[in-house]
Amino acid sequence: MPDTAFAPAYFDKNRQAILDDWFALLRLPTVGTDPKRLGDCARAAAWLKKFLKPLGFAVDIITPEGGLPVPIVLAERPGAGATTVLFYGHYDVQPEDPLDGWKTPPFEPTLIDGRVYARGAQDDKGQVMGFLMGVKALIEAGMPLPTLRLVIEGQEESSSKGLTALAPLLRQRLHADVLMVSDTSSGPASQPAIVAGLRGVTHFTLTVSGPGYDLHSGIHGGLAPNPAQGLARLLASLHNDDGSIAVSGFLDRVRPPSEEELGLARESVITPEAYEKEIGCPPAGGQQNLDMVTRVSFMPTIEINGIHGGYGGPGSKTVIPSSALAKLSMRLVPDQTPSEAFAAVKKHLTDRCPRGLTLTFSDSDSGAPGFRLPVHSPVFRLAADVLRKIDPRGALFHWDGASIPIVALLQHVSGAAPLLVGFGREEDKIHCPNESFGLDQFVSAMTWSTLMLSELAV
Amino acid sequence: MPDTAFAPAYFDKNRQAILDDWFALLRLPTVGTDPKRLGDCARAAAWLKKFLKPLGFAVDIITPEGGLPVPIVLAERPGAGATTVLFYGHYDVQPEDPLDGWKTPPFEPTLIDGRVYARGAQDDKGQVMGFLMGVKALIEAGMPLPTLRLVIEGQEESSSKGLTALAPLLRQRLHADVLMVSDTSSGPASQPAIVAGLRGVTHFTLTVSGPGYDLHSGIHGGLAPNPAQGLARLLASLHNDDGSIAVSGFLDRVRPPSEEELGLARESVITPEAYEKEIGCPPAGGQQNLDMVTRVSFMPTIEINGIHGGYGGPGSKTVIPSSALAKLSMRLVPDQTPSEAFAAVKKHLTDRCPRGLTLTFSDSDSGAPGFRLPVHSPVFRLAADVLRKIDPRGALFHWDGASIPIVALLQHVSGAAPLLVGFGREEDKIHCPNESFGLDQFVSAMTWSTLMLSELAV
Repeated sequence: MPDTAFAPAYFDKNRQAILDDWFALLRLPTVGTDPKRLGDCARAAAWLKKFLKPLGFAVDIITPEGGLPVPIVLAERPGAGATTVLFYGHYDVQPEDPLDGWKTPPFEPTLIDGRVYARGAQDDKGQVMGFLMGVKALIEAGMPLPTLRLVIEGQEESSSKGLTALAPLLRQRLHADVLMVSDTSSGPASQPAIVAGLRGVTHFTLTVSGPGYDLHSGIHGGLAPNPAQGLARLLASLHNDDGSIAVSGFLDRVRPPSEEELGLARESVITPEAYEKEIGCPPAGGQQNLDMVTRVSFMPTIEINGIHGGYGGPGSKTVIPSSALAKLSMRLVPDQTPSEAFAAVKKHLTDRCPRGLTLTFSDSDSGAPGFRLPVHSPVFRLAADVLRKIDPRGALFHWDGASIPIVALLQHVSGAAPLLVGFGREEDKIHCPNESFGLDQFVSAMTWSTLMLSELAV
Repeated sequence: MPDTAFAPAYFDKNRQAILDDWFALLRLPTVGTDPKRLGDCARAAAWLKKFLKPLGFAVDIITPEGGLPVPIVLAERPGAGATTVLFYGHYDVQPEDPLDGWKTPPFEPTLIDGRVYARGAQDDKGQVMGFLMGVKALIEAGMPLPTLRLVIEGQEESSSKGLTALAPLLRQRLHADVLMVSDTSSGPASQPAIVAGLRGVTHFTLTVSGPGYDLHSGIHGGLAPNPAQGLARLLASLHNDDGSIAVSGFLDRVRPPSEEELGLARESVITPEAYEKEIGCPPAGGQQNLDMVTRVSFMPTIEINGIHGGYGGPGSKTVIPSSALAKLSMRLVPDQTPSEAFAAVKKHLTDRCPRGLTLTFSDSDSGAPGFRLPVHSPVFRLAADVLRKIDPRGALFHWDGASIPIVALLQHVSGAAPLLVGFGREEDKIHCPNESFGLDQFVSAMTWSTLMLSELAV
């Protein structure tokens, strides 16, 4: 059985080789939504196969049909004991824009002061490689592992379309007892955290169209309806003055947390002051009469991810734009379904479309529901014991506001108990310019992998 | 005295040379707000000097201080009679974006089916060259002209900053009896129109800032205030549900038109059906309980010219943007001042700034007031007679919703009576991709120039 010094020692001894492997994967610009990067996604899948085969894995690369054919890596390695572990991760990354926000090239990993900077450095290539390097360390040391099934996909950042379609067909190959996922974060002060819930997500683009072309705002001001103004009115109508969601029916299925869940969730909350210091603004979002934990862990959101229309360059250009668009996403809590949520918002907006303008809804996806797990399950107890070895403070339970769309489906298909433990931190700035992952975080991911897999191999 | 056939005959005879001159000016990308195009503005001024000198003009190129040094062309040619005419035009153009909306290159003038396509083809290089070609035709024919003073500047599209500062110092050189401006449009069905009023204008950029960087919309949704959402709420608050302006104090100085003004203005109005056919959407903008003419000619506006923040690319990127901005402009009616209007809007927005977000106001200018002219003045009677020769329907009076910021100041400094007659049409699509000017419109501008200048030379 490895101890907590095992993974750090392995990392120190093999540091250059480990970084070489990790960086090779980071250099591939695997934006899974971009058809131009499809080749890089295929290269990433091939790279993972080449990495896994010498470790004794049987590896298949599966190309989903319908939509972009971004390959999925499926691997299996028989192990000791009766337990089968299904590990899920993704090699795709968010787009790197805005490019001018990056201090180092997004796809040229750069080690500065013990942190690796690159798109995907953490989310999720860093966390995946940390887990896999733990596996490699155990294998090289001749230590027992459980039967290990890996599914590493390339569309997590775009709702896992291909895997969502394929997973039900792969039921037998995905069957497992525990579903390990390394795509989440530690709690405040880097205390280890077990994710007991995730929010679902669905998104769409709203386009407001008016004049057939951009108009002169003097000649037409007061005559033509302004799509940017119409869009602003529509978006403003989604929330009440107190920050609560104003869409009829949207909140009907929201189930409040139990007292125990709320109590545990509050253990991992940070103060408004600490939040402001880290983020640069106070936590003033969401429904004003609810506390921070309830808002982020147990309530849904409707967020504007982007808004664009008309002139945006230097100086002024006095036009009435012919159209304006907003990118919106919703975070959902258990019992809300993505399709119902989208339908409610679509109806709300359509009912309020200003006269003379037309609305188009596009880019909507099937989305993913949220889930909550029972906090007293055996696998959570085992994980809590392991995490107490790594950090004497023990593990927090965390109901994460983020989404990993595929997890609910993999849980259903595999029959496994989800175990989401990750080592992200706010400072990693995932989805943003200058994403990074600390070498200490990487080693923590390795340590977790070696200890938890060894426990499950018994 | 030339007749109405004089200018068309001159055009037909010198067609290629006229187009060569006009196109040479159009090829210079004279975006007066863009520091990178300063050289092209200087080249345009030099080109005009070279064009005017052989016609007997004394020409000075004056470079304003403070702000971008976009040169101003000042020229004078002594003439017959006691009347001095000051002609005002501009060689600068609006930015050419969005570039992908153009069917031909914006700075490579292209003649298709009797129309010249290029940025500035009409506004204002086409109208200026039409006027100047009329001057040239008269001179070459040895016909008398009044004393002619020209001021052709390069910052009209950005509030004429340099000329605004210089004009009071040039009082003597600008002194005149009539201020002729060729920068406006004909009425419906191309009926000639005399502009009896213009709206003023002022603009600014509003930036809403929140988090220090783009945030993950799952991890932070419900916690962080969303700048795009805050911006939408702020912009929506500028108007009431009936389309009227909701900013306290903004409408206080609005002076309703007289019965006569309203009656004359209504002669040049188009029907809502014709508007929709031309523009692609119904005239549903502005205050709902007012008629079209009142809304566009005698009421102010607050328009969103552009709105930008967060992700706008293909697919989705689930961020809470760190900031979002809107470009706004206001059209003003007489007695409203740009500074008071901006102050009222700024206070309105500042008072409503959502918690956790901060507002920045930038790019604001000194703006220009609007004006209305008496419809029974001698110069208007003379112009009406001339225009009846060109078109038996005679001239309409038009209170234009657009702005030529410098006109009110030039009127004040020169002591001249403004006479704004132009030959633009909606189909010219000024300020938009595929701006164009018909050769027939160009010849009308020449005819107007030859006939009106001859009348004023008596």
